[in-house]
Amino acid sequence: MRLFDYNRAPNPRRVRIFIAEKGLKIPLVKVDLMRMQQLSPEFRQINPGATLPVLETDDGSYISESLAICHYLEDLHPEPNLLGSSRAEKAQVIMWNNIAEQGMDAAAEVLRNISPGFRGHALPGPAPIEQIPALVERGQTRVNQFFDRIEQQLKNNAYLAGENYSFADITLMATTEFADWVETHAYKTRPALQRWYTEVTARPAANA
Amino acid sequence: MRLFDYNRAPNPRRVRIFIAEKGLKIPLVKVDLMRMQQLSPEFRQINPGATLPVLETDDGSYISESLAICHYLEDLHPEPNLLGSSRAEKAQVIMWNNIAEQGMDAAAEVLRNISPGFRGHALPGPAPIEQIPALVERGQTRVNQFFDRIEQQLKNNAYLAGENYSFADITLMATTEFADWVETHAYKTRPALQRWYTEVTARPAANA
Repeated sequence: MRLFDYNRAPNPRRVRIFIAEKGLKIPLVKVDLMRMQQLSPEFRQINPGATLPVLETDDGSYISESLAICHYLEDLHPEPNLLGSSRAEKAQVIMWNNIAEQGMDAAAEVLRNISPGFRGHALPGPAPIEQIPALVERGQTRVNQFFDRIEQQLKNNAYLAGENYSFADITLMATTEFADWVETHAYKTRPALQRWYTEVTARPAANA
Repeated sequence: MRLFDYNRAPNPRRVRIFIAEKGLKIPLVKVDLMRMQQLSPEFRQINPGATLPVLETDDGSYISESLAICHYLEDLHPEPNLLGSSRAEKAQVIMWNNIAEQGMDAAAEVLRNISPGFRGHALPGPAPIEQIPALVERGQTRVNQFFDRIEQQLKNNAYLAGENYSFADITLMATTEFADWVETHAYKTRPALQRWYTEVTARPAANA
């Protein structure tokens, strides 16, 4: 297996943390997003959507979309469990992971519409998409609403999906860091998020 | 169990089709999106995100996010299998379901920024979000790019995730219909999509 990766991007990061939590070692293949290598004909053979990460499996097939990669790895290596154990817990993990991804989308809306580096690439993917300045403010509003909802959940639960650390926490960790690229620092004004963030970033796998 | 539902919305629709394919009968509770009932304090106790569908389970907990609901139901009623059987197939189903959801997001971008009914509600959720006219054209571009990618996949595969009908097809069916609300009619110019669409809409569950 190999993981097509770029170290600074939030989606590859959450899959690397997942892999580290499992205690796995999977070779990384760097696809340099700063040099737009994801748009090369070679990489678009691997993933026509031109996104990272992508897992190449031992039978030579390719899996894109972080959640799909993590399901595949959880199925191969069930312990430590990161996608929920009981039926009810599994549903909560997938639900909260989805919600955490919406926060990542909101932060991306700010970054991709404000940063000169994303001119003409305001959405991931192979086709040119121009920046829309009005999306910067909309994205900031969404980011703040997102963290307000998360704060309510973390006030009443040790982890995002309930009692146990899961992939939903990994996605939220990547989202929280990514939102800091646009100066959100959501935990500074949200004590439950701060308590959670201090704990999850102290895990060894958070360095992945 | 009960499903909080609205008959015209695309996400409740794909969960209803999933339930029908399983041969299950789950009582529906109508939340009238046209009357903004999802924003009522009662419903926001059930789902703070103010989205549909939501599954109330027999132990009285609530699951939002369509994928989480379908995982829960697949776990309770594994046959007929709709989320993949082998490890490789499961990963492809989740991957293509995610991609199909991106098409739904693109169609929503057009509809919610062009239709007077969505003024002040250009994104789902409890907080006001104003329409941005430039998103209409961006959304249309994304919708067309999405269906071009789908056409390539369906040229080489009977179903979206490979050889077997799955939840990814259900999401794509709901996305294809939803895109027709903004006059996409993607299948008219894409023969593989047309072949697939004719087949999947002929299934009895497509009436759900």
